[in-house]
Amino acid sequence: MTNAALSDLDVAHLLADAARAAILPHFRKLSSAAENKAQDGFDPVTIADRAAERAMREILSQHRPADGILGEEYDNLVGTSGRTWVLDPIDGTRGFISGTPTWGVLIALSDETGPFLGIIDQPYIGERFVGGADIASVTGPLGVANLNCRTTTDLAQATLFTTFPEVGTPEDRAAFERVSAQVQLTRFGCDCYAYALLAAGQIDLVIESVLNPYDIQAPIAVIQAAGGIVTDWDGALAHNGGRALAAATPELHRAAMDLLKGA
Amino acid sequence: MTNAALSDLDVAHLLADAARAAILPHFRKLSSAAENKAQDGFDPVTIADRAAERAMREILSQHRPADGILGEEYDNLVGTSGRTWVLDPIDGTRGFISGTPTWGVLIALSDETGPFLGIIDQPYIGERFVGGADIASVTGPLGVANLNCRTTTDLAQATLFTTFPEVGTPEDRAAFERVSAQVQLTRFGCDCYAYALLAAGQIDLVIESVLNPYDIQAPIAVIQAAGGIVTDWDGALAHNGGRALAAATPELHRAAMDLLKGA
Repeated sequence: MTNAALSDLDVAHLLADAARAAILPHFRKLSSAAENKAQDGFDPVTIADRAAERAMREILSQHRPADGILGEEYDNLVGTSGRTWVLDPIDGTRGFISGTPTWGVLIALSDETGPFLGIIDQPYIGERFVGGADIASVTGPLGVANLNCRTTTDLAQATLFTTFPEVGTPEDRAAFERVSAQVQLTRFGCDCYAYALLAAGQIDLVIESVLNPYDIQAPIAVIQAAGGIVTDWDGALAHNGGRALAAATPELHRAAMDLLKGA
Repeated sequence: MTNAALSDLDVAHLLADAARAAILPHFRKLSSAAENKAQDGFDPVTIADRAAERAMREILSQHRPADGILGEEYDNLVGTSGRTWVLDPIDGTRGFISGTPTWGVLIALSDETGPFLGIIDQPYIGERFVGGADIASVTGPLGVANLNCRTTTDLAQATLFTTFPEVGTPEDRAAFERVSAQVQLTRFGCDCYAYALLAAGQIDLVIESVLNPYDIQAPIAVIQAAGGIVTDWDGALAHNGGRALAAATPELHRAAMDLLKGA
């Protein structure tokens, strides 16, 4: 099959399929912390992480040789097309080593304006959230469904997620808690799955900090395709990482940003 | 089929199957907080909760008419056999309404000594953890596997889970944080799924408080069948609810209990 025969979306699915195949054999295969160190000094999550990124890079070298690659595990590859594939083979390694089904494979395709195609894949559940290329959909145990962010406009009716109770600096934490104090429900510990839930219309806000570009680019593409908004805490573009505020509606985004200000 | 033809384990699986069928049509069907109120005043999670418990009670009335029933949603049914089915159709309603796959159906069968058979079922993932009746196994996306708790003995190597950052009273919270400060990793927000992960050898400790009997009886049976220990924070039986400490090994259990003391 020639390169031209595959759309960017086709390639993104190939990448996600390859990552699933590389990672799942290592999931829940640790039985104790003591066993969690192989003889070569790498733990199973690192082995899975690297195997998945190598598999994805191999596919890109075949089907998109002119594109750049920014991945978590290996050196940046500068392309000639102006486009970059942004890869995080296992986002949420703490969830992965704990056996929770909230980690994910993150794949984004971006240009100088940011990501315009993204996949959040949860291999264990067999669930794939796709945004961009005129698509916003999830395929999983209940079949295929469109992704549409909620219409919530009032913080008092909103559900807020973050990965850790401890968000970045003490100032970050205080800012997060100003928002948390206003919402209906705050939940913790969902890794990248929280962004997928926002795109799927299940929750209203995600607030995180200390992010890398590969942590946030796929969520940006998926959430924007579902009608939501992702910026940094000051309303600027978030695709270079740092602090992220994802919201279902402009009203919620503004209300949360007002409370985060000064952090 | 006559009652005698079905083992207790068969009946427990029938209950879990019925609960899955009753609940899944309601999962992720809320699209906003405002829509989360039906005209009769009940939200979708309450509708699913009650439908699942009714379906399970109907099965028990047919196959185990002499047994009692203790369920979250309806009145206690006193039996004549000395045995009680303990049912929580949706444990983790906050997770359910947020779309996370960490809520579960909890089913236990107990006598005066506590639960001796338990199921933790996650319908969306299609994952069922069973303990008791000489079985400790999980069936899910990766097939069937035995459940075996880890062999970790040192808090410094342990992974600790709890549902909320806020655990019960301020004293409960302080006690939890004494343990949290000693472990390798603390994770939050996993509802009953945390107990399943402990039985599956993925994590080492779960600490919670303010539990009802139907929140903890199925986890007790599953974890004990997998070789783990569940008591209250003082080392007494936990099946009547309150505070629970679940540990993979006696050494971890003792070390955590020493830190929880005085709460």
